[in-house]
Amino acid sequence: MGVAPDLARAVLAPASIALIGASADENKHASLPQQYLRRHGYTGEIVPINPTRDVVLGEKAYRSVVEVGRRIDHAFIMLPTAAVLGAVADCASAGVRCATILSNGFAESGDEGRARQEELLAVARRGGLRILGPNSLGLVNLQDKVALSANEILSLPELRPGRYGLISQSGSLIGALLSRGQARGLGFSKIISVGNEADLGIAELGHMLIEDPGTDAILLFLETIRDASGFAAMARLAFERGKPVIAYRLGRSQAGADLAASHTGALTGNGAALEAFLRETGVVRVETLEALLEIAPLLVGQAPLDQRRVTVLTTTGGGGALVVDNLPETVELVPPSPSVVQRLASKGIRIAPAPVVDLTLTGTNARTYGAVLEELLQSPACDLVVAVVGSSSQFRPDRAVAPIVQACASRPQKPLAVYLTPHAEGSLALLAESGIGAFRTPESCADAVRAFLDWRPPRAGEPPAALVPPGRAARPLNATDSARVFAELGVPVVGHVILPAPPTAIDPDALSALSFPVVAKVLSRDVPHKTEAGGVALGIETPEALRDACTTIVASCRAAHPDARIEGVEVQSMARGLAEVLVGYRVDPTVGPIVTLGAGGVLTEIYRDTATRLAPVDEEGAREMIAEVRGLAPIRGYRQLPKGDLAALARTIVSVSRLALRRARRVLEAEINPLLVGREGEGVVAVDALVIEEAA
Amino acid sequence: MGVAPDLARAVLAPASIALIGASADENKHASLPQQYLRRHGYTGEIVPINPTRDVVLGEKAYRSVVEVGRRIDHAFIMLPTAAVLGAVADCASAGVRCATILSNGFAESGDEGRARQEELLAVARRGGLRILGPNSLGLVNLQDKVALSANEILSLPELRPGRYGLISQSGSLIGALLSRGQARGLGFSKIISVGNEADLGIAELGHMLIEDPGTDAILLFLETIRDASGFAAMARLAFERGKPVIAYRLGRSQAGADLAASHTGALTGNGAALEAFLRETGVVRVETLEALLEIAPLLVGQAPLDQRRVTVLTTTGGGGALVVDNLPETVELVPPSPSVVQRLASKGIRIAPAPVVDLTLTGTNARTYGAVLEELLQSPACDLVVAVVGSSSQFRPDRAVAPIVQACASRPQKPLAVYLTPHAEGSLALLAESGIGAFRTPESCADAVRAFLDWRPPRAGEPPAALVPPGRAARPLNATDSARVFAELGVPVVGHVILPAPPTAIDPDALSALSFPVVAKVLSRDVPHKTEAGGVALGIETPEALRDACTTIVASCRAAHPDARIEGVEVQSMARGLAEVLVGYRVDPTVGPIVTLGAGGVLTEIYRDTATRLAPVDEEGAREMIAEVRGLAPIRGYRQLPKGDLAALARTIVSVSRLALRRARRVLEAEINPLLVGREGEGVVAVDALVIEEAA
Repeated sequence: MGVAPDLARAVLAPASIALIGASADENKHASLPQQYLRRHGYTGEIVPINPTRDVVLGEKAYRSVVEVGRRIDHAFIMLPTAAVLGAVADCASAGVRCATILSNGFAESGDEGRARQEELLAVARRGGLRILGPNSLGLVNLQDKVALSANEILSLPELRPGRYGLISQSGSLIGALLSRGQARGLGFSKIISVGNEADLGIAELGHMLIEDPGTDAILLFLETIRDASGFAAMARLAFERGKPVIAYRLGRSQAGADLAASHTGALTGNGAALEAFLRETGVVRVETLEALLEIAPLLVGQAPLDQRRVTVLTTTGGGGALVVDNLPETVELVPPSPSVVQRLASKGIRIAPAPVVDLTLTGTNARTYGAVLEELLQSPACDLVVAVVGSSSQFRPDRAVAPIVQACASRPQKPLAVYLTPHAEGSLALLAESGIGAFRTPESCADAVRAFLDWRPPRAGEPPAALVPPGRAARPLNATDSARVFAELGVPVVGHVILPAPPTAIDPDALSALSFPVVAKVLSRDVPHKTEAGGVALGIETPEALRDACTTIVASCRAAHPDARIEGVEVQSMARGLAEVLVGYRVDPTVGPIVTLGAGGVLTEIYRDTATRLAPVDEEGAREMIAEVRGLAPIRGYRQLPKGDLAALARTIVSVSRLALRRARRVLEAEINPLLVGREGEGVVAVDALVIEEAA
Repeated sequence: MGVAPDLARAVLAPASIALIGASADENKHASLPQQYLRRHGYTGEIVPINPTRDVVLGEKAYRSVVEVGRRIDHAFIMLPTAAVLGAVADCASAGVRCATILSNGFAESGDEGRARQEELLAVARRGGLRILGPNSLGLVNLQDKVALSANEILSLPELRPGRYGLISQSGSLIGALLSRGQARGLGFSKIISVGNEADLGIAELGHMLIEDPGTDAILLFLETIRDASGFAAMARLAFERGKPVIAYRLGRSQAGADLAASHTGALTGNGAALEAFLRETGVVRVETLEALLEIAPLLVGQAPLDQRRVTVLTTTGGGGALVVDNLPETVELVPPSPSVVQRLASKGIRIAPAPVVDLTLTGTNARTYGAVLEELLQSPACDLVVAVVGSSSQFRPDRAVAPIVQACASRPQKPLAVYLTPHAEGSLALLAESGIGAFRTPESCADAVRAFLDWRPPRAGEPPAALVPPGRAARPLNATDSARVFAELGVPVVGHVILPAPPTAIDPDALSALSFPVVAKVLSRDVPHKTEAGGVALGIETPEALRDACTTIVASCRAAHPDARIEGVEVQSMARGLAEVLVGYRVDPTVGPIVTLGAGGVLTEIYRDTATRLAPVDEEGAREMIAEVRGLAPIRGYRQLPKGDLAALARTIVSVSRLALRRARRVLEAEINPLLVGREGEGVVAVDALVIEEAA
């Protein structure tokens, strides 16, 4: 998907702007865009649209955009909800290229608003008008001096441009991010509030920033993903062009997710699915808000790493420890290599071969710091360097920060993250000017290091499968049919026999396929939690005991779910394995098909110990998933415990994930729980399976 | 433990200071304290001690503190390691009250240094001299203008005093914390770098701050705890006096803990033990560095809460969501009560009854914000309020922050945490001046809210038991003796029989106490991980199979541990329960006896899913521990699964924790793993037990 250059210009750098609903009262909100555009040096034409005035704040005004008679690039609509549609129709008929709609009351506000938004969009499309919003706070192009927003942050006397573009789904936070970036010496190229993304969304706007020579990296403040395949294509192209895409996602906690959903009016898929989607599209994911602002210089010009070896250099032991203490265990802390230690010794600099190289005793003069840093940046024994500077960074940038700037002068080299322990605005600004990633807190520094090390290239191969249209009816299959779906995928399934309910008489021949002990489970689509409903009996030793168990099971389930249709009782031989796991597949409403692996039983839920990927995955992806689930440590080779058949498990994950490729009778959801994993070479076997298909 | 007022004065507000090793060269480090004292307005007498000069930086100098001939309150020693002892002896004989030792090379540097420190301490004690340090960066009393440190931060032109005291085990970070506090409008009363705490430690210095009328709260930057009982007594007194003690602890990650240990030269106990100790001594624990600086106003004048109900008020939906998203699930988000909604409606203010009250649409004028905030602060339906303010806080404190200040004017009321989304220094300073807890990042705000809700009063009852002197020899007991220790405590233990190794012939009578199936386990102090060594066989059905199993077990263990002394094979009936748990007891080297409950099997290790308390605990404490372990959710009442006998489990935890009270033959370490927990009313039973006693 390309973006027409003239559209990008009309959106981001319009030569003329109509302010629809512009107020002549300087104290009114609707007068602010006009004031801000002028204040920040907009050089194009401003056309206020006001039904009752000829002049608004010194500018000739028109009753309607239709009356202007000249081509308008961009309209900014600040009208009450009910008046927006008329204004959009005017824009469309007047040949306006793009309209940003500040007004709310559309898809974010419920079904009625959603219908209003659809109507508006239809009108715009007929006239070739593109829409930003509705519910957008506007945009700021700091490089071309287009401050097209009513956000109060624009009352700052000066906006310092930088080279990072920001696209935000939260409107109000663009002000906060711009304000904090300014204060921190980190400027933006373009800032865009996308609102409801009715038309122009992150995908297309991201493309504009990819094509924008003024933008080196793309920062995203996300609440959801509305156009997964467009987003994926944009992120992939950004990666290819060497423009890192960095995302902070609201809704990582359940409470936050609920809020984000209520906020955007968008469907939100599950968090793990979104995280998998972002990782697999090559996006860098930060978890602290400050890291979103600060991480870009660390990433620009770099590529994802294969290894995770980090060395820390510090003038203060405590400062180094602060960063290290916030790094997750997946980061490998390594000491300088013997050859680094030796080369420094030959220059008279003695350092201890520890992962945190503390220069407190060695002497913290600029020469020493610079020499050690240069060695670490050259050394093939580590992949990323963290440089910490103490009090001197507040008072003597010459002594502590200049050597860092100097050591980084000869790009390209390995990534370097700097943490300054005191309040050291001057040094932070100096590092920002030099394009060096520097961090204000140990938490944001550690978060950025982790985010860099977790960064992966976009996955190869086809884009995510098309999404199921929301609202398509679902049809759960019974156990036999569900088992058949997995058997067809090549997943071994425990043999089973279905007995009638009630089990008045059990024909011994029906059990010939089984060897006792067996397990009996109620067969019913209407009993979701079988164990809790008394629908499962384990360790049944004899045919007589089996009959008793069946009677009890049916009675319990009837008691728990009086309206349930009970189709029978499923009897299986008791299978054993080293471990139980869950393998799940689901078409996520936001990002499409995903596959999930979890530690078995209730632990998956209790510890949220799962690994998720976009489906389908290949065997390498499946092996990564197996490595990610902490609860599988015992079967990955733990102390001297026997290893599980991880190869068979990986094959099963791959097989299940390939449900994404099934086109006829699409599977919406599928789960094997438990899948028993045997010892190495013994394979795996599915014990209980559930499949929900698209209704015919 | 009280502190003599004259000692507190000599330490924190000395009338005379000898600078031992003072340099006359203004570019030398050793000249800085003299410069800083003058720069920041020290009004007492400064006495440089320099062997070769009569005058140093304009002040009459002496060769030795002994030659001064006047009483000196406080000496600051900046000499090479080897010269420190002589200076200390001089101070002792000259009647100096207190010496701060900047020099390093003592306990933090290994055994030799430790011996040097002991010697120095003995000399000081003989002369009645108290020591701060060695390896202390000094102290700053901002209220009395005593800037007694060589830390570069003191080159700030002005130090603004405040009302929070800071004691730090990291010397270099006192500069960072002072610098950041200043920049943030949060001042300190006194700042003390304690170094090695050879003599004056956190306990005594904390007492000085408790008695200090200029200090409202005590902030601690911790790497370890060196005097647990002194610390506990200090923290308890601070709590009683309404001065919150707030700790940031370095070493929460393993890498961080290793660093803290290498750094301080102190023993570090395990992190869970330290956390338990801090919680149970009434200390507020923050996890972000910024929260250490920012949280004090939130706590002063408040007490720990029984409930955890939080309501968020915001002018920006995104800003509210940022805080909420960082709160852990243990925080209960509640909407305003119907009566609050109604009372506001009667004033013409309509709010939605949601846990995040977003005023974006209601209108964010000062009157509305103030009215809603006042209602929430009065409402008995929530315990803590988070108030978020968007862009207006940067430009219009009158509109957004003033209503907060006004709503808080009538103290005492419930705790209020404020988060400002933009860079809003003016508003932050205004809130700080008004004693309102305000936070610069959503992460520190959420951390502070969590820390407040996790705050508990100091535990009642006796102080922690005395610690075992380090290095006392330990003696592991065999299985029979270990089981006896637990049986004596009243813990039910699975019956067992010991068979000889090798099991040439098994006497059937020996097995009369058992019913098959049984489990067989090697009995040897020299085989630490029995399962991994092939030393365990489960589900043995017959006496013949038992003999075979014993032969295999002995052979496997011999193969795995050729030098192990194998005392026999322990045979037990197979016991069953709903869940397996681990109950452990240990004398932690830092904080003393602790008791730990963990989810069973390898999960305890993999998920680090444990609850730890100082021992002994009472039944209420034990029940809290059971509630804390996530992996026990299935037996606490999960969906419709049967509940476990939690009462019996709690009694067992209490019994094991009472090992702390055993004085003769003290137990150093004890563990039941697994303890099987039956259904409600069925009790618990210990299957495998290990006890390590103090050697006789």
